[in-house]
Amino acid sequence: MKLTKAPMGWNSWDCWGAEVTEDVVRKNAEFMAKHLKQYGWEYVVVDIQWSAPNAKGHEYQPFGKLNIDEYSRVIPAENRFPSSANGKGFAPLAEYIHSLGLKFGIHIMRGIPRAAVHERRKIYGSDKRADEIARFNSVCQWNPDMYGVDASKPGAREYYESVFSLYASWGVDFIKCDDIARELPHEEEELILLSEALHGCGRDMVLSLSPGPALLEKAELYKQTADMWRITDDFWDKWELLYDMFSRAEKWCVHTGAGSWPDADMLPVGAILQDYGEENRTKFTEDEQITMLTLWSIFRSPLMIGGELTKCDDFTLALLTNERVLKMHENARNSHPVWRRKINGNEIILWTAFSSQGGNYLAIFNAGESMADITVALSDIEIYEDKTGFELWSGEKFSGGEITLSIPSHGAKAYYIN
Amino acid sequence: MKLTKAPMGWNSWDCWGAEVTEDVVRKNAEFMAKHLKQYGWEYVVVDIQWSAPNAKGHEYQPFGKLNIDEYSRVIPAENRFPSSANGKGFAPLAEYIHSLGLKFGIHIMRGIPRAAVHERRKIYGSDKRADEIARFNSVCQWNPDMYGVDASKPGAREYYESVFSLYASWGVDFIKCDDIARELPHEEEELILLSEALHGCGRDMVLSLSPGPALLEKAELYKQTADMWRITDDFWDKWELLYDMFSRAEKWCVHTGAGSWPDADMLPVGAILQDYGEENRTKFTEDEQITMLTLWSIFRSPLMIGGELTKCDDFTLALLTNERVLKMHENARNSHPVWRRKINGNEIILWTAFSSQGGNYLAIFNAGESMADITVALSDIEIYEDKTGFELWSGEKFSGGEITLSIPSHGAKAYYIN
Amino acid sequence: MKLTKAPMGWNSWDCWGAEVTEDVVRKNAEFMAKHLKQYGWEYVVVDIQWSAPNAKGHEYQPFGKLNIDEYSRVIPAENRFPSSANGKGFAPLAEYIHSLGLKFGIHIMRGIPRAAVHERRKIYGSDKRADEIARFNSVCQWNPDMYGVDASKPGAREYYESVFSLYASWGVDFIKCDDIARELPHEEEELILLSEALHGCGRDMVLSLSPGPALLEKAELYKQTADMWRITDDFWDKWELLYDMFSRAEKWCVHTGAGSWPDADMLPVGAILQDYGEENRTKFTEDEQITMLTLWSIFRSPLMIGGELTKCDDFTLALLTNERVLKMHENARNSHPVWRRKINGNEIILWTAFSSQGGNYLAIFNAGESMADITVALSDIEIYEDKTGFELWSGEKFSGGEITLSIPSHGAKAYYIN
Amino acid sequence: MKLTKAPMGWNSWDCWGAEVTEDVVRKNAEFMAKHLKQYGWEYVVVDIQWSAPNAKGHEYQPFGKLNIDEYSRVIPAENRFPSSANGKGFAPLAEYIHSLGLKFGIHIMRGIPRAAVHERRKIYGSDKRADEIARFNSVCQWNPDMYGVDASKPGAREYYESVFSLYASWGVDFIKCDDIARELPHEEEELILLSEALHGCGRDMVLSLSPGPALLEKAELYKQTADMWRITDDFWDKWELLYDMFSRAEKWCVHTGAGSWPDADMLPVGAILQDYGEENRTKFTEDEQITMLTLWSIFRSPLMIGGELTKCDDFTLALLTNERVLKMHENARNSHPVWRRKINGNEIILWTAFSSQGGNYLAIFNAGESMADITVALSDIEIYEDKTGFELWSGEKFSGGEITLSIPSHGAKAYYIN
Repeated sequence: MKLTKAPMGWNSWDCWGAEVTEDVVRKNAEFMAKHLKQYGWEYVVVDIQWSAPNAKGHEYQPFGKLNIDEYSRVIPAENRFPSSANGKGFAPLAEYIHSLGLKFGIHIMRGIPRAAVHERRKIYGSDKRADEIARFNSVCQWNPDMYGVDASKPGAREYYESVFSLYASWGVDFIKCDDIARELPHEEEELILLSEALHGCGRDMVLSLSPGPALLEKAELYKQTADMWRITDDFWDKWELLYDMFSRAEKWCVHTGAGSWPDADMLPVGAILQDYGEENRTKFTEDEQITMLTLWSIFRSPLMIGGELTKCDDFTLALLTNERVLKMHENARNSHPVWRRKINGNEIILWTAFSSQGGNYLAIFNAGESMADITVALSDIEIYEDKTGFELWSGEKFSGGEITLSIPSHGAKAYYIN
Repeated sequence: MKLTKAPMGWNSWDCWGAEVTEDVVRKNAEFMAKHLKQYGWEYVVVDIQWSAPNAKGHEYQPFGKLNIDEYSRVIPAENRFPSSANGKGFAPLAEYIHSLGLKFGIHIMRGIPRAAVHERRKIYGSDKRADEIARFNSVCQWNPDMYGVDASKPGAREYYESVFSLYASWGVDFIKCDDIARELPHEEEELILLSEALHGCGRDMVLSLSPGPALLEKAELYKQTADMWRITDDFWDKWELLYDMFSRAEKWCVHTGAGSWPDADMLPVGAILQDYGEENRTKFTEDEQITMLTLWSIFRSPLMIGGELTKCDDFTLALLTNERVLKMHENARNSHPVWRRKINGNEIILWTAFSSQGGNYLAIFNAGESMADITVALSDIEIYEDKTGFELWSGEKFSGGEITLSIPSHGAKAYYIN
Repeated sequence: MKLTKAPMGWNSWDCWGAEVTEDVVRKNAEFMAKHLKQYGWEYVVVDIQWSAPNAKGHEYQPFGKLNIDEYSRVIPAENRFPSSANGKGFAPLAEYIHSLGLKFGIHIMRGIPRAAVHERRKIYGSDKRADEIARFNSVCQWNPDMYGVDASKPGAREYYESVFSLYASWGVDFIKCDDIARELPHEEEELILLSEALHGCGRDMVLSLSPGPALLEKAELYKQTADMWRITDDFWDKWELLYDMFSRAEKWCVHTGAGSWPDADMLPVGAILQDYGEENRTKFTEDEQITMLTLWSIFRSPLMIGGELTKCDDFTLALLTNERVLKMHENARNSHPVWRRKINGNEIILWTAFSSQGGNYLAIFNAGESMADITVALSDIEIYEDKTGFELWSGEKFSGGEITLSIPSHGAKAYYIN
Repeated sequence: MKLTKAPMGWNSWDCWGAEVTEDVVRKNAEFMAKHLKQYGWEYVVVDIQWSAPNAKGHEYQPFGKLNIDEYSRVIPAENRFPSSANGKGFAPLAEYIHSLGLKFGIHIMRGIPRAAVHERRKIYGSDKRADEIARFNSVCQWNPDMYGVDASKPGAREYYESVFSLYASWGVDFIKCDDIARELPHEEEELILLSEALHGCGRDMVLSLSPGPALLEKAELYKQTADMWRITDDFWDKWELLYDMFSRAEKWCVHTGAGSWPDADMLPVGAILQDYGEENRTKFTEDEQITMLTLWSIFRSPLMIGGELTKCDDFTLALLTNERVLKMHENARNSHPVWRRKINGNEIILWTAFSSQGGNYLAIFNAGESMADITVALSDIEIYEDKTGFELWSGEKFSGGEITLSIPSHGAKAYYIN
């Protein structure tokens, strides 16, 4: 399976952290089915700690309890995901998501649960035990749950095959694997083994690697093992992180497309950090959100909504459902930056892409601190004749050999040129 | 002036080193006019040391004599460029080149001649003297002729303006400025001053910066000051250098186009190193030369022939005049690598580009040591339907959703897909 | 307590690795009491894994069993240390060592046992549990037994106090703490806490830090927390490692003395690696062993014999009991290198020291590959008059203002000058 | 010749910069002969630019004129050193200095004068010319006068031999060679050649290398080529630079003694920067000056006074003529730091040394910002019995096993312990 476009969906992390529940997932899925599905949004992803009965907030509990089956595989915490009781795992929830016409994803950590190792639990399909495939010094720096798996040990392949076989049997469509994308070259062998196990499990499942920043010099490895990989550490609603994404996207854009989706991370829009109080809304200004969606779209990053969908406001909904912008996300090809220049004190950044439907895209960003009034010549993207087109967010038309526009501070505009 | 395509031409360095003469230049220009011009080749560039009466081979002479005018500007050595006598400079030679329908370029070193500094010569348009604008510790590491110019000193701007004014008056079309591209950030101010002086001189002259490797983090500076810049140190006929260019091109491809031409350096084809004996021919195999032209063309590097044109053999001439390949050089847009993979022991490298005429280009390189028999799916460049097209070097046609081909070791094929 | 001279003793690692037993310890102690004690040798140290019932050879067993008391403290494996049965710990063995007029030391790992953490065992004197003070991502890279302790957590200080209180109650005189010396600055807080707990336990115990190389920029921290610290990774019987020690000693010599003992590691002499076969003897030549003892002595490194004492041959015994050399080890002050020079193709290295008894020491090493015939002027150590003295290893006398000598390849001579 | 103690003298740089004159030198020499000679001060050194007729202040003039003889050697500017007229060079001035019972030194730059190179002047004893031994790209970064000499070229040795032969014939006793100490490894060959030429010239001349920081890993090279070398860039009257010297001295102390004198640079005391106004006096407090003299003395740095001697005030004179302190400078052996500790918020630094006369030195520095009241145990320098002694600056006596003292902020005390 090669994804012909970057995945679009919702992920529970930004709003619910480690304490997402089945109820939350169902309600967000229902909202997506009703309001977003027709625009291309389809994945519903349960993020980290779904097997921990006592997980709270965005922090991890050292040596906390996980729900683990007899074969050393994490399974959902039944108190949080009631439909998983009686050994059903995520199958009932996946079935419900599918019934809405959507796809279902889950988060996993690289490795094998510590508790399974210390209890010497079995490995399905092998006579080895958990402690015989674990690497005691391959420990995630920020989450206490797992030991890395030693890919060279008998039983290691069987373990990963059994994991993905189980999740495939539940109907999982998307695996976000954590503690793996930037852990190279140390964990390269484990990544390869994990990828082979996943792709051999008999069900098409998207493989998404976290956390970033991924290593540019390992681009080919990511392409050959995964569908998408994070090019940044966790992205949150701060301008500095958004600004920094221009450089990251510049480095990775040549690796985007044809089943390879460098991932600029979730969109912290709307209602985020729900567990920390009612008033938590993205700190991004509306212009910054437009910049984010424009950059993610022309760069063709995966689009994963981080906000609680049921509390979506009008602006956010409009932001996520602009058909012209989402068409750029789908049809842009060979995207790349054109230039970054100081113009009257503001840094202006220009990106362009071809459209697979014919024509060109042009995105113009104002990374400066004041309104920018500028003119961009089409010759900057090697178009040497007059053209017509329109701005994507507003629909406003233009014609001629150059575009004259005003862009607010931290804002963006994008054009389709025919 | 913004160059709508990467310059194509001939440069005297690879074959004649520091001892190129007017006779050599005229004969190469005549050959170009007769055999190459119709394919787009147009620049004839006199490389380094043309002002040194005693220059020999590819080495430099410490503290050797240069021909310098009263205003501290280097002028041609009359014994080597007889038409420059009586203060005419390169005007007669430029006029002859123009009469052939071609363009004329010269090499310069950043800075002001040491001899002028030590003799305290005048600066045109300023009451300062050469020693007052020179930086005694800004000395090229490999050539003894110049001191850097201190851009902050009165007289510095006048000096560079007078230099380019003189060369413009001769009819120069192309300046290859040396000891500047990789000397950043130390020499950034001098580069900016030099660029401003050149672009204000009243004549369109291409500005080409050497030597490489240019610094990727200074990409925007190059774009704003120059037309082309070297992304590599001197390129010669060794496979290791050619192989290395895939990585360099990968980094720079997003900065190519619309007047910005990252430069993979001269093509050491045919008869090179003429001053060192009759038998000097490129060490590249024919397949390697095809790889070189294919990569330079899809990447849209400037194309500067390094070999002595009058000794051009049939293979070399065919290599340089394949209209299909040169059309890719002209029309490719948004070029970028797709993947690099080991396939049956050979590293295969895939590049793609859009064509400004519609359609796509696909180049496939075999960096391995044996013949590669492979199949490339069009879906790898995000084409999900059957297509027709042809191979550029051979004209051979194909149709369908994939291309099956054999590529010799170190060889390449390129396709236009309609 | 401030040690007025660098400790001398025996350590079980080089010969017995992880599988040392009580019987071995007793026999080596008896040998020391009979043959070495009168020369100043006094510490008998049980190295790593004494709490592991199934430990074997020089390797560690991931997730292997340790003997741990209810308060999360490792205690001896009774099958290997029978006298420790019934909760007596090392008290009986320590008592026996003491009865021989010697001192008793044990190895510990920084941290708290993994098993205790996963079983949530108690901490003596605290209501916290092991898992509440462990740092899940502070894991030794080469040994699987412990988690680091988070010095900022309630219970951490109580844990370390209880550990040293227990070991003090057994009569331990020397603690070799592992996984701590080079783990700075990450584990600095834990080192300080551990040192404070040890020094507050009511019994004088030497604190020795491993493994090296210690960080020179942290010299003051080591001085303030410990008695000795390793300046090298594990030292074995290879000339390259011995040669390298000259540079290490040069850097650390200014930090030696007055209770501070940079440690060049154990002496792999005589019978080492006993568990791997009968024929294991040091690979060092006799001259190299003389070089080692000479350098360790003038530098005043701790001296810890690594070989199985009961298999000591005549050469080894003589090497370890030269009273003139051991007197230098005791009385040298302000030791430092004087020069390293190539003389007739051999690198010759000169060290000097004052003697606290008056007079000077001079050590001359031949790091070259052939016999060196050289003359060293006393003026090289700022003695500008004639002197008398003798060579330490041979007792041979000299007089005058210079010393003429022959030194075999990789050999050494040392002089006392009165 | 091997210097048995670190040189002491006066150097013109700190007070007169590049414009020192014969009159200044004579007057300072006369002051030294009258007030300082009996304390061991003996060298009078003319610093940089003495061959430049138009030199001014502490700046250099790019491409300024130097006085150069027909053999490419710089000779004194006659307008500034009148006695050098008629080809006498510094011989008359040296003779006068010698008549005062003092020694005479001069500064030189590594290399050969640019002007001599560009004029292709002769080399004494060789048929080569200046341009044939010069390295065009070996140019001092901060002074425009010279090109480096290519040690591999015929004529290079003859040049340096002729330089030192000339200066020896003048009666020069001390050469401060600049642009060489930290220019390693690039200029290593030139340093070796220069050293050999100097030491073969037939006259004992001290060789002092500048500027620093010298490279610790090249310590043996300095020892084998020179008498002293700068361990710091130019040292001026700023506490930060003084504080930094503790670390530099710590690294270099093992290399001090027996003709090897790591150099902490001139003492900016009394009247400095005389050319910039009458009021220029050192910015160091009196306590800081005591710290400086104490550290320089126990470390045994060369002592070179930077202030204008004829304007010496009482404090400065007392500072430079304390016989107890200067005796430590002469007799200290094997000096090294003992510890650096925060005590009640102040960083206290302890150094010790043996005395060649018997007994020990102890220096205590307060690098903190408030008065420190502390007690230092003699056991910290491995003296385990009661002793008597006295403080060097004050003469105050003490007895017992510890010293209780108060030290002002940035101040120092030093003790001799018998």
